[in-house]
Amino acid sequence: MKIGVLGAGQLGRMLALAGYPLGLEFKFFNTVADAPAGQFASLVVGQYEDEKALADFVSDLDVVTYEFENVPVNAVNILERYVNVYPPAKALEYSQDRLVEKTLFRDLGIPVPNFYDVTGLESLQESLLRTGFPAVLKTRRMGYDGKGQAVLRSEADVKEAWQSLQGNALILESFVGFEREVSMISVRSKTGETKFYPLTENHHREGILRKSIAPAPSLTDELQTQAETYAKRVLERLEYVGVLAIEFFVKEDQLIANEMAPRVHNSGHWTIEGAVTSQFENHLRAVAGLPLGSTQTRGSSAMLNLIGVRPNVDDVLKLENAHLHWYGKSVRPGRKVGHVTLVGETVKETQHQLILLENLLSKI
Amino acid sequence: MKIGVLGAGQLGRMLALAGYPLGLEFKFFNTVADAPAGQFASLVVGQYEDEKALADFVSDLDVVTYEFENVPVNAVNILERYVNVYPPAKALEYSQDRLVEKTLFRDLGIPVPNFYDVTGLESLQESLLRTGFPAVLKTRRMGYDGKGQAVLRSEADVKEAWQSLQGNALILESFVGFEREVSMISVRSKTGETKFYPLTENHHREGILRKSIAPAPSLTDELQTQAETYAKRVLERLEYVGVLAIEFFVKEDQLIANEMAPRVHNSGHWTIEGAVTSQFENHLRAVAGLPLGSTQTRGSSAMLNLIGVRPNVDDVLKLENAHLHWYGKSVRPGRKVGHVTLVGETVKETQHQLILLENLLSKI
Repeated sequence: MKIGVLGAGQLGRMLALAGYPLGLEFKFFNTVADAPAGQFASLVVGQYEDEKALADFVSDLDVVTYEFENVPVNAVNILERYVNVYPPAKALEYSQDRLVEKTLFRDLGIPVPNFYDVTGLESLQESLLRTGFPAVLKTRRMGYDGKGQAVLRSEADVKEAWQSLQGNALILESFVGFEREVSMISVRSKTGETKFYPLTENHHREGILRKSIAPAPSLTDELQTQAETYAKRVLERLEYVGVLAIEFFVKEDQLIANEMAPRVHNSGHWTIEGAVTSQFENHLRAVAGLPLGSTQTRGSSAMLNLIGVRPNVDDVLKLENAHLHWYGKSVRPGRKVGHVTLVGETVKETQHQLILLENLLSKI
Repeated sequence: MKIGVLGAGQLGRMLALAGYPLGLEFKFFNTVADAPAGQFASLVVGQYEDEKALADFVSDLDVVTYEFENVPVNAVNILERYVNVYPPAKALEYSQDRLVEKTLFRDLGIPVPNFYDVTGLESLQESLLRTGFPAVLKTRRMGYDGKGQAVLRSEADVKEAWQSLQGNALILESFVGFEREVSMISVRSKTGETKFYPLTENHHREGILRKSIAPAPSLTDELQTQAETYAKRVLERLEYVGVLAIEFFVKEDQLIANEMAPRVHNSGHWTIEGAVTSQFENHLRAVAGLPLGSTQTRGSSAMLNLIGVRPNVDDVLKLENAHLHWYGKSVRPGRKVGHVTLVGETVKETQHQLILLENLLSKI
């Protein structure tokens, strides 16, 4: 079976590495030639608006998936004339627009911050009367890694944010004074089978994921069940096939949905070594119409992203239980170039290793 | 770092899959183009006698290794003019000739069956007086998967075996009435660091490995220590770098060396999911001059080879804890086309899954 993947970054690369042992073949579609997945899979360079390029790409494929959520929906619609595309196009539509996404969550009874459609400066001021300060102004589309958003703490912030974000469709959200952030990585097969990984605790800085701990420390059955219930509602409403990630804030033991990504997710990288079946393999099993694999954890995991740094490989590999994943990219400030996963038998063992690894990376 | 690999079968394929996350690049050299590793790595087709082809191959490489032990030593000597080749050429020399190999074991104080150099029919008869029946007549070179050998139980067998094997350099060995077969997968780094996986119990049929159980059932510390001691002697004598596999017979709690392979080994495939660091990653770490990874087991493993059969992938993947490895080969009788590893938390859990998997495969 030959799988087409839209996008060819590190997520695509890790999909290919998970799929080759299953006998799957891959072809990637990307707007530029220099991409991590192209280093060991065939890569077609084209534009998403180029109908002929898409038709050529799909000609020998059995199914198509994608590794980033900003694929133009129209490109997916074109590809769907030829083969199935999973996750379904409507998952893209919902996740590409924060207003539509939050409305979906609310319709499904999933708690969300208060949110308001901002159609102009006047509408922003009106919405701010309802949220109060602080609040968060975000572009409805194309935001990622903390880009396209601003926290508003005073009238002065409003002016500045408006100047930088106006011209985009915007949404205003209540600021959630959360205790921590977690994510639910879930997967649904073509037959409707669903599986869930344990909630992962995520630590961001400057809007970029830095660290994930899995399972989330002090995770209760109640919180896990809450997350699974919410994820299942989204999976079923969208007739979803593949891996879906939902990020939540945790406040007073309640989950508040922040956003979702219809793809494998950075906060699920620990599953490569830390779960029986990785998120990458389970995504492929789902889109290829195979049975899902166990999402049971294997020990206690922690993952650190390598952002704009190349550590000394020797030092990392000397750490017992450290698994290095290098994405084959050149190092640039702020760029995710790899990650390291630590898997210990106990939480204590992993925490100890994590301190060593964080020390090591802080010295670069 | 770019690593050249001589041979491009499933072992090479699994080396590449283990090496990409470390940021390693690969180029394979093979006598035919249709090879499993060539499906997602660059592959140069050439003959080992073609000095120019070898020089071209090595031109952009940092180090060379190999994935089968019948690489002509002369080819390695040529490559060594340009870059380091690991494991060292002398490991090939020893392992390519059963007489030289057994003599090395004996010199290192590692128990071996009685063995005799057979230089002709007369010499065979003389040697048989010393071994008695049964005995095993083997070609000194190019034997694998049970090929090039015959068990002699009577004078009639001698005649038949002589007719089929004469013309080759031969060795006669005492037949060992062993209780079981085990293998030691060991690894040595450039700095002389050594690591050992637990002994694996192996089950052969018609000379081909069918099943491995790791750790070997009822493995005692004494047997493990014995195996590590023997392996270490070989590693140090050969100033070895990389993974070395040694197969032993077990008889009355003693190990008797059968043969060695200077490469990653089929009986170590379980380490991909069943150990902290796989044999493939540790081999690459060694030849790339990196620190070795932990050889600690993760749970209880069993591996079944898929020989000449393609099972229903759905059925295999439905088994909890089953990891499918398909080599991208066409199915032919007697051909290793994949393997399945089961990893459970306990021996009991793995044994239960193994019964289900064996049932499933017996129905193909």
